[in-house]
Amino acid sequence: MSEVRILPVAGLPEIAAGDDLGSMVAERVELEAGDVVVVTSKIVSKAEGCAIELADVTPSAFAEAWASTWDKDPRVVEVVLQQSRRVVRQAGPVLITETHHGFVCANSGVDQSSSGAHERILTLPGDPDASARRIRAALRALGHQVAVVVTDTFGRPWREGQTDIAIGVAGIHPLRSYIGEVDPHGHEFRVQEICVADELAAAGELVKGNTSRVPVAVIRGFEYEPDEDATIAPVLRDASRDLFR
Amino acid sequence: MSEVRILPVAGLPEIAAGDDLGSMVAERVELEAGDVVVVTSKIVSKAEGCAIELADVTPSAFAEAWASTWDKDPRVVEVVLQQSRRVVRQAGPVLITETHHGFVCANSGVDQSSSGAHERILTLPGDPDASARRIRAALRALGHQVAVVVTDTFGRPWREGQTDIAIGVAGIHPLRSYIGEVDPHGHEFRVQEICVADELAAAGELVKGNTSRVPVAVIRGFEYEPDEDATIAPVLRDASRDLFR
Repeated sequence: MSEVRILPVAGLPEIAAGDDLGSMVAERVELEAGDVVVVTSKIVSKAEGCAIELADVTPSAFAEAWASTWDKDPRVVEVVLQQSRRVVRQAGPVLITETHHGFVCANSGVDQSSSGAHERILTLPGDPDASARRIRAALRALGHQVAVVVTDTFGRPWREGQTDIAIGVAGIHPLRSYIGEVDPHGHEFRVQEICVADELAAAGELVKGNTSRVPVAVIRGFEYEPDEDATIAPVLRDASRDLFR
Repeated sequence: MSEVRILPVAGLPEIAAGDDLGSMVAERVELEAGDVVVVTSKIVSKAEGCAIELADVTPSAFAEAWASTWDKDPRVVEVVLQQSRRVVRQAGPVLITETHHGFVCANSGVDQSSSGAHERILTLPGDPDASARRIRAALRALGHQVAVVVTDTFGRPWREGQTDIAIGVAGIHPLRSYIGEVDPHGHEFRVQEICVADELAAAGELVKGNTSRVPVAVIRGFEYEPDEDATIAPVLRDASRDLFR
């Protein structure tokens, strides 16, 4: 193993719908073959126009009632519910949902901050793997052979503090398997699969931060398994195997 | 934000009880002030002699019965139960416990691989914060002002693949708070706290790997909040706030 570097990509302007993120990144960092470009989903949502005007939202009676109980905006609650396929936990003011993509997170990943106006909220990209593929294709068209990971900041059970995780990938298999490998003593490893996509997302957050306006990181020197058909699907545990859904 | 580097610490020998990990690390990497030394708990357990001879274990009737149902070693099951204060989920062959430290993980973090003999298993360090403090003190005695994170590889709900997380810290506050900060539009951040200790653990795994015999990584260039009295306690969500316990 050799050194891995995490490079912040600074200087990106406020992202608007239609922006070509790949080109904008390539202009601001000298990419090398094998780099992993880690992109915060918020700017992907902005580039893809995943904004909802609250004035256009009509809350359901269910959303109205719960929002009233917990002093929330019923239109935001409505969007959260529409972005979900199932409520996983609804306890006090907390709403944990399973999104249409299959991510389990607070408020379906809907973001009311930094969306440019109080009356507008951002949703997660509709297909973050497709988003990652588009960014990767734009970079490839400029001559850069890289992988792309689209990230979001999620909470988790049992532990305080959120971490960045992967919600979409392109060009990199998200898992590293140790199945069938043995240690020097001939034992199988306790670890069977490592979610390298999530570890890359977490590493990227160390230089991105949430206030620093650095929504992209480049990770250099990490040897990953290339996968032209990669998606985040192998990371999403099937409900039949899940003890906490 | 500037670049963050993740350096593997190679060349460590097999660790034995009583080994001084701090000195062994310092001999193999040029440490700089402000580095974060990320240490896999397995070598901490070995250095601290956290090994249990299975020949010395007498399984309870409960451990015997469940082990028999799922073709497990009843002595290992007994150790897993003894290392826990509560069973969180027991479903099929899966046993998710809350350890005496308060970590929720599979099999109380007990490791039957790489422990030097099939008839011996390794448990997590009894007090990983104290372990981190000891390593940090040894490094400080050699003139190195660093922080230390002790890690283990845990699974998580909803997502396949494990990731490295922090189980002990020294000299670094494990959380980065955004509470009360506002974005350029005056909104509070959706993110309230980031668990930087877990992100550092995940980043370290990118160069450590689980087969590569690189149990230590050094992370350089990350600006953390120094905390002489740091512990992992703020990361452990209180059961009263937890929807998945």
